[in-house]
Amino acid sequence: MRKEIGNITIKMKSSKKKIIDIISRESGMYDLCGVVKTVRQTKGPTIFMITDGSSMMECSGFVGPGKRAYPEIAEDSLVDVTIIISQNKDRIRREIQSISKVSDSSKDAILEKIAVEVKNNSKISNVDFLVESKNLDALKNKMEKVASIIKQAIVEGSPIYLRHHADTDGYVGALALEQVILKLIERYNAGDSDAVYKYYNRTPSKAPFYEYVDVLRDVADATKSKNRFGQKIPLVLLVDNGSTDEDILSIKKAKHYGLKVVVIDHHKPGKIVEGKCAVDEFVDAHVNPYLTGADKNLTAGMLGVEIARLLGDVKDPFVLCALAGVGDHSKCAEFDQYLKKSGKSVEYLNKISLLVDFEAYYLRFMTDSTVVSDIIYGDEKLVELLYAEISKKIEEQKTVCSHYMDVKELKSAVFMTLDLDLTTRRGEFPPAGKTIGIAHELVIEKYPGKMIVSVGFGPDFVTIRATSDAEEKGFDVNKIVSDLKSLMPYSACDGGGHEVAGSIKFVAGAKDEVLKAIKDVVFGL
Amino acid sequence: MRKEIGNITIKMKSSKKKIIDIISRESGMYDLCGVVKTVRQTKGPTIFMITDGSSMMECSGFVGPGKRAYPEIAEDSLVDVTIIISQNKDRIRREIQSISKVSDSSKDAILEKIAVEVKNNSKISNVDFLVESKNLDALKNKMEKVASIIKQAIVEGSPIYLRHHADTDGYVGALALEQVILKLIERYNAGDSDAVYKYYNRTPSKAPFYEYVDVLRDVADATKSKNRFGQKIPLVLLVDNGSTDEDILSIKKAKHYGLKVVVIDHHKPGKIVEGKCAVDEFVDAHVNPYLTGADKNLTAGMLGVEIARLLGDVKDPFVLCALAGVGDHSKCAEFDQYLKKSGKSVEYLNKISLLVDFEAYYLRFMTDSTVVSDIIYGDEKLVELLYAEISKKIEEQKTVCSHYMDVKELKSAVFMTLDLDLTTRRGEFPPAGKTIGIAHELVIEKYPGKMIVSVGFGPDFVTIRATSDAEEKGFDVNKIVSDLKSLMPYSACDGGGHEVAGSIKFVAGAKDEVLKAIKDVVFGL
Amino acid sequence: MRKEIGNITIKMKSSKKKIIDIISRESGMYDLCGVVKTVRQTKGPTIFMITDGSSMMECSGFVGPGKRAYPEIAEDSLVDVTIIISQNKDRIRREIQSISKVSDSSKDAILEKIAVEVKNNSKISNVDFLVESKNLDALKNKMEKVASIIKQAIVEGSPIYLRHHADTDGYVGALALEQVILKLIERYNAGDSDAVYKYYNRTPSKAPFYEYVDVLRDVADATKSKNRFGQKIPLVLLVDNGSTDEDILSIKKAKHYGLKVVVIDHHKPGKIVEGKCAVDEFVDAHVNPYLTGADKNLTAGMLGVEIARLLGDVKDPFVLCALAGVGDHSKCAEFDQYLKKSGKSVEYLNKISLLVDFEAYYLRFMTDSTVVSDIIYGDEKLVELLYAEISKKIEEQKTVCSHYMDVKELKSAVFMTLDLDLTTRRGEFPPAGKTIGIAHELVIEKYPGKMIVSVGFGPDFVTIRATSDAEEKGFDVNKIVSDLKSLMPYSACDGGGHEVAGSIKFVAGAKDEVLKAIKDVVFGL
Repeated sequence: MRKEIGNITIKMKSSKKKIIDIISRESGMYDLCGVVKTVRQTKGPTIFMITDGSSMMECSGFVGPGKRAYPEIAEDSLVDVTIIISQNKDRIRREIQSISKVSDSSKDAILEKIAVEVKNNSKISNVDFLVESKNLDALKNKMEKVASIIKQAIVEGSPIYLRHHADTDGYVGALALEQVILKLIERYNAGDSDAVYKYYNRTPSKAPFYEYVDVLRDVADATKSKNRFGQKIPLVLLVDNGSTDEDILSIKKAKHYGLKVVVIDHHKPGKIVEGKCAVDEFVDAHVNPYLTGADKNLTAGMLGVEIARLLGDVKDPFVLCALAGVGDHSKCAEFDQYLKKSGKSVEYLNKISLLVDFEAYYLRFMTDSTVVSDIIYGDEKLVELLYAEISKKIEEQKTVCSHYMDVKELKSAVFMTLDLDLTTRRGEFPPAGKTIGIAHELVIEKYPGKMIVSVGFGPDFVTIRATSDAEEKGFDVNKIVSDLKSLMPYSACDGGGHEVAGSIKFVAGAKDEVLKAIKDVVFGL
Repeated sequence: MRKEIGNITIKMKSSKKKIIDIISRESGMYDLCGVVKTVRQTKGPTIFMITDGSSMMECSGFVGPGKRAYPEIAEDSLVDVTIIISQNKDRIRREIQSISKVSDSSKDAILEKIAVEVKNNSKISNVDFLVESKNLDALKNKMEKVASIIKQAIVEGSPIYLRHHADTDGYVGALALEQVILKLIERYNAGDSDAVYKYYNRTPSKAPFYEYVDVLRDVADATKSKNRFGQKIPLVLLVDNGSTDEDILSIKKAKHYGLKVVVIDHHKPGKIVEGKCAVDEFVDAHVNPYLTGADKNLTAGMLGVEIARLLGDVKDPFVLCALAGVGDHSKCAEFDQYLKKSGKSVEYLNKISLLVDFEAYYLRFMTDSTVVSDIIYGDEKLVELLYAEISKKIEEQKTVCSHYMDVKELKSAVFMTLDLDLTTRRGEFPPAGKTIGIAHELVIEKYPGKMIVSVGFGPDFVTIRATSDAEEKGFDVNKIVSDLKSLMPYSACDGGGHEVAGSIKFVAGAKDEVLKAIKDVVFGL
Repeated sequence: MRKEIGNITIKMKSSKKKIIDIISRESGMYDLCGVVKTVRQTKGPTIFMITDGSSMMECSGFVGPGKRAYPEIAEDSLVDVTIIISQNKDRIRREIQSISKVSDSSKDAILEKIAVEVKNNSKISNVDFLVESKNLDALKNKMEKVASIIKQAIVEGSPIYLRHHADTDGYVGALALEQVILKLIERYNAGDSDAVYKYYNRTPSKAPFYEYVDVLRDVADATKSKNRFGQKIPLVLLVDNGSTDEDILSIKKAKHYGLKVVVIDHHKPGKIVEGKCAVDEFVDAHVNPYLTGADKNLTAGMLGVEIARLLGDVKDPFVLCALAGVGDHSKCAEFDQYLKKSGKSVEYLNKISLLVDFEAYYLRFMTDSTVVSDIIYGDEKLVELLYAEISKKIEEQKTVCSHYMDVKELKSAVFMTLDLDLTTRRGEFPPAGKTIGIAHELVIEKYPGKMIVSVGFGPDFVTIRATSDAEEKGFDVNKIVSDLKSLMPYSACDGGGHEVAGSIKFVAGAKDEVLKAIKDVVFGL
């Protein structure tokens, strides 16, 4: 069958095609059927974004410059379309030859078919976990749900905003997911070399939660991209962030504006009732080991790598998981297996983790395209170059900490305090959180085998590190926070983290009282 | 009449057309007459921006890629042009067929005609104020002048930079003006869906004045837009900012670089002589109730709404004005009328105002497209979602303030002081300015009917709130500032605000002396 | 000879052309020979960036939308190309008609020819220095090398990132170089009006060294520009920055990612062995008077102006050099000559320098296009406008300093200390560094002819100014730093600068000890 349009003769395709099959095809006229996802008016044609579940495609309708073509076709219309694809050296044109709403009688069957197609395309690989783990098995359904939502977003052309904690664990999870997400975006947007920039961005976050200022920016970006560029509302993917009460307001805000929110985290999410915690009411999917009876030792980085593998190939996954574990001081059977299979030493991974800390500190909210990735994948020259310099800074900080820290030997424990305002330099590595870690290690070296609690403090915060035997004796930063909240409500205490590694914020006026209270806890261990 | 160009036959338009009448027209050849506003050389054609007072239009002249077409036609030339408008699916082309300078003999008459056209198009609506008010009547001429300048900027294609104070009053004024400005830009740039992004931007400002860093950015943006994109020099519109001595240097700088500056403010502008204050020498127009004998109670938000109404429809104007009034604790007949006609309770408006404070705090200098607007227009779900969370934060801060504030009952007054460094948390809501407000309210509740002065202090600033009976007794933050300046010049005191609500900055070395001086003022009331 | 392509008949060029000769030429078919520098795939054609040493040129190959044309032609291929240049009103097209690798037999000869062409085009002017100076003569080779590298980057299409210290000296050097760089970019990218934005950016830096956060941004920008836009890896040009040990890590990082780094500085670069200092191992070229036996008095601004003159005309070079000298308190024969020939008074130049300080303070890392340049070139109205305001701020700060500074008359010297935290206002001009300068001048006025050492301090830094007679007695900020490092390693001291003007950072815990140590040095003079 042939048809003439203007003076072009085109071979007529008689049957309906899937979008994925024609998106990077040669010139021709094609019939297809799909749902209009967005309609955008330009100075020239009207742009309709259509999906049939196999992929997204933009086609243009034209009745006059800046004039709305086919006003009867609105968002969410189910349509039959005939488009002419033509190409010149600059780009592909996909012009609507005819478009009409599908009749009510056939509507439901077609929508059902599209739903099936979306589901099929959002299908994820069926791969085994890298290690044997009942804890991972218990999380499998949740992990598959997260992977499916990510894939569906890509298939449907929704941008993905990946936000992650700016430490080694967070970077590992985020960069593993980034690898597979970028490949999928390229595949589902064949021929659009700019798609990875339009449909994906990643931002590290210093705070271990989804900050309100970040959700404001995400909502503003999402709204602007929709209004100005006709983009869909994005999926927010929180990695090593997102599970705690501090995330709830931001997540609710994002949801209010139509953003999807998915969480991959291993921070203790507060009280769990029937396998659910507080944020579960609001997020679209949530992976956290505490939900299924495991704990923080199964880190967000490990989870991110395993979820990424459901979506595609991840480079050196054992090394990544082992590195995440070392970064977050993981102690569990899964970590042991990752480490063994990685073929790397803990010493080497500690070195890499230190370098990631260093880069993350100076990158702050900047998105680097390569520097952290190069370190994580162990670019030897780069590692050498940085390590020489950074280990000098660490040595210097050890000298500072040794001089200024206050160490008390108690009957059952060693209690160390350090004024971080007097021992760190603003804007320079190592910052407060790293410095208390360095000082804590010094005390551990000096008192091997002892239970040690280290408290670094500033004018309005403390940051705490303790050995794991303290946890066994009931020491828990989160418990200290909740006790302070009820005992000293005027201190406006907040914070937490892991049991033996966390931070507490308060109003500066309460500093001495808070320090005294923590001291009493330690003396009572 | 028909004419052949190449192999296109076009119906010849015999008489000169207005630009506004052809800007979104079909293909054809048109004659028009106008002034060349800018000339910009691209890699391809030379772009001439021409206006005849009805609208702006870009047309292109081409003699070779990157070569200057019609070098004899410079900026400000008055020209006769024949253009061919053609269109393809991507855009409209407007190619110059011929262009020549208008002869000297007919020049003056035509320029006069264009001036009349500009004036007609810059005409503003003749609408009554929302409420009966002699104070508004007294400001009417000034308000009309501001509205005319805004409209003229749009008609002539100058970008508008709207800068406003980041509080409820400032947001109300800015968002009311934004509504009408965006509609006018769309109208005068028919067919250019990007015009609202090219010709308008809005930025909130934490400081209650036009900061020097902001004018530097504005000048840099204006210069770059001109050089790179051939844009006109913008109009700066200051809302709830701009009237005081602290604004003068920035305004002078903007004017030096050719930017127009218009001010809508209600902050006390310093000494007024014959209806003029210090900034009047530099700005293009200035609306401030103090200039005509009224005061701060007629707020910038109310003025912004009333001015916006001269330019187009404003949604829910009574609610907006009542909200602005509540935000700035307005007490006046105008406020009473706005409130009554708004149909809202003070309690409800206080709630909305609190939410705006919250968003403004985290937005800082970010421009949101929708979140503040959604709150101001009372999106119920959003209000509920945020209020639940924010009221918790406020309650907590009340507990903090109650514990740490120092209250002294004097004979005639109650004097409260609060160390804000010890009672607020960096980077978190509520900040210092809000906290002193909360503490002040607590004292008012505890001592109903008493005259109360509350002083919050940090290392190098105080922020003061007092009940209005203190103002009657002569208490005035601005007077305290000027007294401190002369008594303790080494303190480098600066600041002010409203009589019973303002802030003073000084060098930290002078803190104790300044606090002592303020105490003496209060004890002497 | 004529040839038909499609239905276009084109005059055939029989001999190979240089790119520079055809880049802005009329339509036609041309043969050329060059090296493929980058290959970039777009949604439409594949873009090859080719150079033959005379200039860069992009041409496009097309086999299908988004498909890689000529996959056998990779980066660094030496190729024979036939291109068709055609033009429409929007742009020039340069389509590859045929492209093939040069045979191995002729390869070397052609590469040699291209190398010669590059060298010829990178040739710099042979101009005499503005003043007679053995010190400049000694640096001549190094200066020519820097100029050649800059020119070569432009000829080869590498972007230039200019980073400079944000003081008068740094701005003078940077803006002189900017003038000539922009003109060269325009010349070697004829017809691309956007080239100056694509191939050049300048950023001021508050710190007197290449900060790690800056190199991270540079690497991220370079990588993104390469991946997304097919740009070449840039040249980083450090002005009034880059010579010291603090720069090494950043420079090594930049080099690791393939960026070239060139330094024009006059800060003391640490130990010099056989005319080389520590950074010399890493940078591509380095101009610093200490390398050839001169010192800081030959400032980076003077060097920048003289190097710029090797590349093109600099406006008012004598005034620029004199201004740089005044800004950095230069005392040398070269300065005297520049000053004399500038026709300006020291008083006038001091005024200009103060204004540059003021703008630089508020601009921070913003790149202004015009405001500093307008001040440096003495726009009279602007200078007057700003000076009136800024001199008020300086007078006020003098009052503050007089009140709070602590002055001790010793036998041989006057020792002044000033707590800068108590005497400056956060976020306002004048900042700490300027304030200690103002206070130092007050002491000099009060004790004419005396040796004076002024020490301003904050919680974790001191900033020192001394009269030059102190230097003669052996006072050297850099020596104090190295002494503190060995005496008090736990203080984590760092910093330095010039002998009699510099800053020292340390951990806040060491403040009292450091101040005591400095006092002891002064008392021992």
